[in-house]
Amino acid sequence: MAPKTAARRRTSGREPKAERPGRATSRATGRRAPTVPSRRGRRWVWRFEEGHRGMRDLLGGKGAGVAEMTRAGLPVPPGFTITTQACLAFLGGRDRFPDGLWDEVLLNLRWLERTAGRRFGDVDDPLLVSVRSGAAFSMPGMMDTVLNLGLTPETVEGLARATGDRRFALDAYRRFVQLFAKIVLGLDPEPFDAALEAAKRRSGAVSDADLGAEALAALVEEMRQLVRAAARTPFPDDPLVQLEHAIRAVFRSWNGRRAVAYREFNRIPHTLGTAVNVQMMVFGNMGETSGTGVAFTRDPATGERRLYGEYLLNAQGEDVVAGIRTPEPIAALGEQLPRVYREFERIASRLEAHYRDVQDMEFTIERGRLYMLQTRTAKRTAEAAVKIATDMLRERLITRDEALLRVEPDQIDHLLHRAIDPAASVTVLATGLAASPGAASGAAVFDADRAEVMARAGTPCILVRIETNPDDVHGMIAAQGVLTARGGRTSHAAVVARGMGRPCVAGAEAVDVDLRARQFVAGGVTVREGDLFTIDGTTGRVIQGAVPTVEPKVSGALRRLLAMADEVRRLGVYANADTPDDARRARAFGARGVGLCRTEHMFMQQERLPHVQAMILATTAQGRREALAELLPFQRQDFVGILEAMRGLPVIIRLIDPPLHEFLPNHDVLLTEVATRRERGESGPELAHAEQLLHAVEELREQNPMLGLRGCRLGLLYPEIIEMQTRAIAEATSDLRGRGVRAVPEIMVPLVGHVEELRRTRAVIESTLAEVARERRVRLAIKIGTMIEVPRAALTAGQVAEAAEFFSFGTNDLTQMTYGVSRDDAEGKFLAQYVREGILPDNPFEHLDPDGVGRLMAIAVEEGRRTRPELEVGICGEHGGDAASIAVCERIGLDYVSCSPFRVPAARLAAAQAVLVGERTSTA
Amino acid sequence: MAPKTAARRRTSGREPKAERPGRATSRATGRRAPTVPSRRGRRWVWRFEEGHRGMRDLLGGKGAGVAEMTRAGLPVPPGFTITTQACLAFLGGRDRFPDGLWDEVLLNLRWLERTAGRRFGDVDDPLLVSVRSGAAFSMPGMMDTVLNLGLTPETVEGLARATGDRRFALDAYRRFVQLFAKIVLGLDPEPFDAALEAAKRRSGAVSDADLGAEALAALVEEMRQLVRAAARTPFPDDPLVQLEHAIRAVFRSWNGRRAVAYREFNRIPHTLGTAVNVQMMVFGNMGETSGTGVAFTRDPATGERRLYGEYLLNAQGEDVVAGIRTPEPIAALGEQLPRVYREFERIASRLEAHYRDVQDMEFTIERGRLYMLQTRTAKRTAEAAVKIATDMLRERLITRDEALLRVEPDQIDHLLHRAIDPAASVTVLATGLAASPGAASGAAVFDADRAEVMARAGTPCILVRIETNPDDVHGMIAAQGVLTARGGRTSHAAVVARGMGRPCVAGAEAVDVDLRARQFVAGGVTVREGDLFTIDGTTGRVIQGAVPTVEPKVSGALRRLLAMADEVRRLGVYANADTPDDARRARAFGARGVGLCRTEHMFMQQERLPHVQAMILATTAQGRREALAELLPFQRQDFVGILEAMRGLPVIIRLIDPPLHEFLPNHDVLLTEVATRRERGESGPELAHAEQLLHAVEELREQNPMLGLRGCRLGLLYPEIIEMQTRAIAEATSDLRGRGVRAVPEIMVPLVGHVEELRRTRAVIESTLAEVARERRVRLAIKIGTMIEVPRAALTAGQVAEAAEFFSFGTNDLTQMTYGVSRDDAEGKFLAQYVREGILPDNPFEHLDPDGVGRLMAIAVEEGRRTRPELEVGICGEHGGDAASIAVCERIGLDYVSCSPFRVPAARLAAAQAVLVGERTSTA
Repeated sequence: MAPKTAARRRTSGREPKAERPGRATSRATGRRAPTVPSRRGRRWVWRFEEGHRGMRDLLGGKGAGVAEMTRAGLPVPPGFTITTQACLAFLGGRDRFPDGLWDEVLLNLRWLERTAGRRFGDVDDPLLVSVRSGAAFSMPGMMDTVLNLGLTPETVEGLARATGDRRFALDAYRRFVQLFAKIVLGLDPEPFDAALEAAKRRSGAVSDADLGAEALAALVEEMRQLVRAAARTPFPDDPLVQLEHAIRAVFRSWNGRRAVAYREFNRIPHTLGTAVNVQMMVFGNMGETSGTGVAFTRDPATGERRLYGEYLLNAQGEDVVAGIRTPEPIAALGEQLPRVYREFERIASRLEAHYRDVQDMEFTIERGRLYMLQTRTAKRTAEAAVKIATDMLRERLITRDEALLRVEPDQIDHLLHRAIDPAASVTVLATGLAASPGAASGAAVFDADRAEVMARAGTPCILVRIETNPDDVHGMIAAQGVLTARGGRTSHAAVVARGMGRPCVAGAEAVDVDLRARQFVAGGVTVREGDLFTIDGTTGRVIQGAVPTVEPKVSGALRRLLAMADEVRRLGVYANADTPDDARRARAFGARGVGLCRTEHMFMQQERLPHVQAMILATTAQGRREALAELLPFQRQDFVGILEAMRGLPVIIRLIDPPLHEFLPNHDVLLTEVATRRERGESGPELAHAEQLLHAVEELREQNPMLGLRGCRLGLLYPEIIEMQTRAIAEATSDLRGRGVRAVPEIMVPLVGHVEELRRTRAVIESTLAEVARERRVRLAIKIGTMIEVPRAALTAGQVAEAAEFFSFGTNDLTQMTYGVSRDDAEGKFLAQYVREGILPDNPFEHLDPDGVGRLMAIAVEEGRRTRPELEVGICGEHGGDAASIAVCERIGLDYVSCSPFRVPAARLAAAQAVLVGERTSTA
Repeated sequence: MAPKTAARRRTSGREPKAERPGRATSRATGRRAPTVPSRRGRRWVWRFEEGHRGMRDLLGGKGAGVAEMTRAGLPVPPGFTITTQACLAFLGGRDRFPDGLWDEVLLNLRWLERTAGRRFGDVDDPLLVSVRSGAAFSMPGMMDTVLNLGLTPETVEGLARATGDRRFALDAYRRFVQLFAKIVLGLDPEPFDAALEAAKRRSGAVSDADLGAEALAALVEEMRQLVRAAARTPFPDDPLVQLEHAIRAVFRSWNGRRAVAYREFNRIPHTLGTAVNVQMMVFGNMGETSGTGVAFTRDPATGERRLYGEYLLNAQGEDVVAGIRTPEPIAALGEQLPRVYREFERIASRLEAHYRDVQDMEFTIERGRLYMLQTRTAKRTAEAAVKIATDMLRERLITRDEALLRVEPDQIDHLLHRAIDPAASVTVLATGLAASPGAASGAAVFDADRAEVMARAGTPCILVRIETNPDDVHGMIAAQGVLTARGGRTSHAAVVARGMGRPCVAGAEAVDVDLRARQFVAGGVTVREGDLFTIDGTTGRVIQGAVPTVEPKVSGALRRLLAMADEVRRLGVYANADTPDDARRARAFGARGVGLCRTEHMFMQQERLPHVQAMILATTAQGRREALAELLPFQRQDFVGILEAMRGLPVIIRLIDPPLHEFLPNHDVLLTEVATRRERGESGPELAHAEQLLHAVEELREQNPMLGLRGCRLGLLYPEIIEMQTRAIAEATSDLRGRGVRAVPEIMVPLVGHVEELRRTRAVIESTLAEVARERRVRLAIKIGTMIEVPRAALTAGQVAEAAEFFSFGTNDLTQMTYGVSRDDAEGKFLAQYVREGILPDNPFEHLDPDGVGRLMAIAVEEGRRTRPELEVGICGEHGGDAASIAVCERIGLDYVSCSPFRVPAARLAAAQAVLVGERTSTA
């Protein structure tokens, strides 16, 4: 509503009548230039000084950022923003400017001319502008920025005269023509790059800066001819036509392939639109007192409180991030231009205090004068995020709740990622910039598409590029890590990899990448596509082969943050742990119980499998009992270990779950063996044994084993198994009690779909517990509950709760059955395509589906508690460690989440955030 | 409450003080015989004259029946009923008689003595009683009846003196001892049978009746010794002890294995309990003016209005139904005892008018005097049920709604079962009684357990027995039909088979059954276990080998009944039909549309499969399009046929559904072939081809194909398939329109779980329809809807309905996913056990699970219609033809059910009944 009111105010006469700006004509639109703004409709254009940071949706992140900086009195080149609404109206209206838009642009251009004291298209001292996109969410690498717009064969001479630097003017013109061709006209950039390289070769120039004015003049002319040939139309020499084209190009880029892909990966709605910022040009390439750079108010890798960034003198904006020249660290500016550096420090400090968060700033110095071009909240590493949040809390810049919300739970997970084992002897091939922390090993792969193919095939890989651009993002997502030969810590590769939590070594110039040969050479070693190697994004090392890694440690800052999270969160955090080691690690990471202890992995161990197989092959209950008796001591010892590690805390033990054929040899291998032996004419005992095994496997084989004989169904058919497992649990508990250890096991029945299944299984468990209690003369109060992983169990939870003391949502299976999707079959196949094409908003195995699975859970919680108010309800599917899913669990009112030990810290934070976000929503 | 009040009235002094009855002692209970009935607690015993038919729950079917007959003034031997409540109190109280029960029994026994004019245990003229069970539901073959109770070495002589027939008295005593040993004491009957046979051999007797008094006296003594040896206690010679034992035995038989099995098969609750009827004995075995029989007021096989039944002179009750002697048809009684026959006719007619339904009566004639022992609603064949219902409506005995409720929909299904093709030349081996109509072919099997094993293995079989008893019921359930060598139309085999709708030929005396050799000989042919043969239960023929059968015809009575059903029902009835033949049959049976036309069977035909395989093996969309182009004409022709058969009625066509590997050769066969060829050292093109196919199959193979790449997922991956199918539908519609045929196809998308899947599939369908419409210059208004078969689709039906014009519940898959049970894997395995053991009340694939699946359906209907009020909702799973499931569909408010063509008539009736029962429930 605000914009509309403001628009009304504005159109009520505060602005003077617009004059016809400069020498521009109306050829651009074919309409008469207006003399008054349209009185109908909404307002499409806002001057920087009129906006503020709260208008991000309307003005985009960049627009709101420069507006806020302008309001704060910082030195920002003047300009105006065309709203995201204008973009949407354009895209929704078959690529036509909405009514009134062009009129408002012309009026504001007139105002900009007055403010700048120059006129657009003036042949003597022309006003030049930049045109850049800016959506509500920062989308790194959209790169749709056109600089120096307004230059023509006539105005370039005016610029030369006005600045007294013809080479500079022609260099600006060359950049403009090249960018306009690529970005606005969408032409293939390669011939333009080739023309530049050829011109440099002709002049014997090493860098762009070595090209003289005449060479540049010829180059510009050559590029204009290239445009005419490729676009079949002359290069537009009317600045207003240039401006109109540029605005259209920004609008259209919202629906460009790479932008759409980025939004899909980051789950940004497609309906936001992008704003367009038109801003007076300032020049960082007007000699050695000019320059351009990017900087952070704190170190985005470590969180350290110091200016962190890079700049280049005598360069324009693109030069720094494109990694074409290697930039200087920001501190060097203190020596080169001390006055400017001190002013920049003051501004950075004001900006951070103003935004109460670390800022990522772009600036330009024009002949010793500092201009701030952009500021935005900085992306940061996990380590930095934690340190900054706790530091800023200590600095009283932010509150506890804000500190908790400043760290993404997924980032914590990165913090806990493995690092290179310091004890390992490694062969370092090269060292680059430590651009995104963590270690990764994988096969070398040299383009993004192939990385995706490899990852889909299950081969971990590391993407190697000279430098990356937005077309590489899907490969970076697929890869375990990224290595680039060029570019700094703020290069595309570094920024994107940090955002995704992928380890990245950037700017490793000693790595000689040959994309065509699909190999790189470093330290005298040739690494070909498919060869294993390792990167350490924490130190910048590139290492030969795959090397051992070690577990990370939890920093003091993280410990403090998690302690605060524990104060805030309502949900308990348990861990899924099948071994004493897992249990110890989980406890160390703060788990307050084991939410899922799977017992079948225990059956798979070498010395036990023969007994398990004997049990399966037995044809009588007695035969099964004998085999199970052999397993009992092992199983009891397993439980002793885990229960001891978790002493005093609950350990929820799930009875055997998988179909029995999983414990037998592979069917196809047996079938091939039998066929081969038969063809050989064998008839000995080996063939007979193979045939017997094959027969057993075929008896057990199922068309859809996930929906077959498994879970509690096994126990109802073979109660002996449950008796053995229950006995092992009960005896372990009693043994530990004898040693003064308080063990708190709970027994969980899997795959219940009907309460009667649980009732009967429960009866077997209870009678076994009573038996052990009698034998050992102990009291055993062991809770018995069930997984809720079959939709019917959720739908009839009111009945199921009659026989269950607790529920634990097995959301892996629950998702499979609710969606009718077999994860094993689908995830690499149609499900991947579904997510890629947006048929599903998310992979429902990563993020809990709130509408389907979540709804079933809500039904189960509500109706289960109606039957049994004290019912304890948790989740032990993989979703238990996912922040978005934890938020759903908080909303539904679960008692705890259980996740893998490494995810416990992230889950603690996510649980706290779920409370804070929930409070915010409920008070809104 | 009524019983309590009555009890209070009774104990308030209306009855005289009980004297100690007869010479009975209190040894039986070890308690003092009471002088006044217990004033506390409820009433446990009712005299026949005090009850009525409405007290079925309390007095059981038999008790309520004799009470009602007594009230109606019919000649019923006096007696009293111990209530089902007493039984439950006994079973719930660790097999102890509840307080007051024995006292009430003694009081009523005293009353019975006064009424009969004889005393229990009187050594001169003893009162004898029968003790029989009687639950609320008739449970044929419980057979727990003890006759002649009260006989002892002393009273038998009194009976001999009082009747002047010592042989009769001793015969009665022999029967009593034999029955008491078997039923009350639970002893193995074989030694007793053997003793009887030996006695007959010794005396050269052909039948029991040929044994003289002395032979019987010796036999009784021998049997008493057998009891002492087997039971390790003397035979009880105190009549009150005998009575107490008998009552206990009846109570306990409620939980006997065969009773429990029967209740489970018939879904009768285990919590009803059985009543015990104690009744004065009358004797059908007192010479040639005595007899016993069973009869129906109408023919239970054809429904014809005439007395139908059998009797034996000089026999006791068990003799008729046990099939030991072959009885006379009831009409013969008119000649043998005309006065008695006329009285019986009058009574039968009164009973039918009184109960307003066909009665199944037991009677005994004692020396020319008729006694009615029992009456109950008669079981009847499907044909009889339909005829009786329509006849009684015409006779104004019942209303239209009652007529509709008198026929079980499942019975109609039996009516439509196949019969022997009259044109087939058959070899009749023997002819028995046409005991249960319908024809069945199968492998001969000679015991019930083996029949069950065979059926589980998928081999249709026919159970062959000399005669059947309750221990055979599970085999009768498993078999396709039953053949017995002995027994009449009211024999156990006949009654049970009719109840289950299994064809049965009974009493085929020419069939020589050798159970030990597992074979029978008939007509000179030996049929061994496993050999195929055929029975025709409609004509009684036993036929060599498997013979062709023909479809049944719909009778006029059935047509009238179904026309009435159509007036009453609200649900539409559609059929599932994949071929024009199916469609025509469905229409003839009254289907008003095709609710499911599967398209994949069309792909399986010989001339098409190569194109389907080429489509699957194609690696490009172009390759797929070419193969699909070959299929298009076939598919179009399929649709032309079905749409023409259903002209004017909707045909819902489901797009391709199964996983693609179903169209390729079997994996294991290919694997074996490849292994064998490799072992042979082959390297030719055949191995290469096999390897290529194997590779393709392995690529497509899935761990859980039911949850894999199928349904709409296929179409999203390969839109070409949907384009082809849609084009075939559209072109078929347009072709038919050109010929003046109104085709009404609707297109159904399978396996939708998320609305976006449907939206995108819909877009492909719509654009193809638009394409054909343009090409053919026609308007195509074809509805597009979806199956609801994935739980998530039901849970998000409000969203799905945005893109669906109709829903059709695919309850087969919906049940599989909601339960997490793969039908293929489970049904013969753990699911069978689940139902057998009562873990599940029903097989959820037979009867819709109302709590789980039904709840999902209710959610989907409600929320789908909230989005789109005109949404059409039906069901096309197999449940669509099941009466219990149709009742659920009516309750949920579906628009129609769709089932197999043969089930359409049954579904029409079931839909009407669902309305009537619903009205009854809602007005109750």
